[in-house]
Amino acid sequence: MLVRVSTADTPAGAQNRAGRRKARTRAALIGAAQRFLADGGRTEVSIQEITDAADVGFGSFYNHFDSKAALFDAAITDALAVHAQLIQRATAHLTDPAEVFAASVRLTVRLRQTHPQMARILLHTGLSHLTDAEGMPASALRDLRVAAEAERFEIGDPYVALACVGGSVLGLLRILQARPGMDAEAANDQLAESLLRMFGVPADEAGRIARRPLPAIG
Amino acid sequence: MLVRVSTADTPAGAQNRAGRRKARTRAALIGAAQRFLADGGRTEVSIQEITDAADVGFGSFYNHFDSKAALFDAAITDALAVHAQLIQRATAHLTDPAEVFAASVRLTVRLRQTHPQMARILLHTGLSHLTDAEGMPASALRDLRVAAEAERFEIGDPYVALACVGGSVLGLLRILQARPGMDAEAANDQLAESLLRMFGVPADEAGRIARRPLPAIG
Repeated sequence: MLVRVSTADTPAGAQNRAGRRKARTRAALIGAAQRFLADGGRTEVSIQEITDAADVGFGSFYNHFDSKAALFDAAITDALAVHAQLIQRATAHLTDPAEVFAASVRLTVRLRQTHPQMARILLHTGLSHLTDAEGMPASALRDLRVAAEAERFEIGDPYVALACVGGSVLGLLRILQARPGMDAEAANDQLAESLLRMFGVPADEAGRIARRPLPAIG
Repeated sequence: MLVRVSTADTPAGAQNRAGRRKARTRAALIGAAQRFLADGGRTEVSIQEITDAADVGFGSFYNHFDSKAALFDAAITDALAVHAQLIQRATAHLTDPAEVFAASVRLTVRLRQTHPQMARILLHTGLSHLTDAEGMPASALRDLRVAAEAERFEIGDPYVALACVGGSVLGLLRILQARPGMDAEAANDQLAESLLRMFGVPADEAGRIARRPLPAIG
């Protein structure tokens, strides 16, 4: 929730206004970069095209970022952080670590419907950011470790498990894009079931957990 | 094996020479494009940079390709076809479809050592080409179907299985690049074992198959 602060024309008020304007410009630049990332991973655009798309002055770019690469990094980090928050909020009421995991995977693939821009950013940048220390990959790694510590999963080296989970989700996002006739919900449930089986959950239980009603996301 | 044909200066000989020169130029362009692809997926280079790297005249480019995108497509298709041939040749003597599958996965991850340029091309382009009708993804899909028909694997929708296999391999290639301290051989074996378990092979058998001596590749 945004908290409205006084905008009385005192030095402090002016400072607040300047700070808010600066934050708005930064957010507009990140939003524009995210639209280019979602559009086929278009990072070869010029800074002029980015500031035009963000509707901010060309000169303001370097008040916020040292380079185009720094902006795109910030845009991806932001998308992965928002993704992690969305999933964590949607699964916070679940207690079984296997169900938290399965719901996280299924909600991520379902971003295609609920948050299409974020799904496209994941598809174009997710593989390069699979070992990021923050955001969704780090959150998936934590979930895997929690499930292993609770003796729900046998995961071996957690980074190999992360490679399987992250890679499989990106692989399915790509295949659903290339084969629009596929039953995406059935494919999504099969993916979650397959990963649960990979981590040692018995087949019948894996099938049930992967088909439980999904919590809402938003 | 290349077969040397007569180069006597007859019209047919001249035609053969011209044909060979044309093939050499095409191969040089594809080779240059593959080096750019392996170098971080650098497809934003100019045609001039490509012809310089290929050591061919700028003008010859359009004798072979309509656009830069057409060259890069051909370069990726060529790499995926060579990859499929390498793996098929190395696994041709194996009879158990589960072992063919596991050896193919492990040899692919091991391309990092045996064929580093090809591994980098896979990493940068493999996700986009996961549903190609030819080359390595198509070959993996065939192997999965053979194993399912032989009742060695339960794969469900073959395209979901392909998403898991292709995505997991790319995920591990990425994580091994980002975490050079990891034991790559152990991680590779665990990946193959995990995928076998995912497809219903009992855990103890999956562990054995994933650690059999690997055939040579080359």
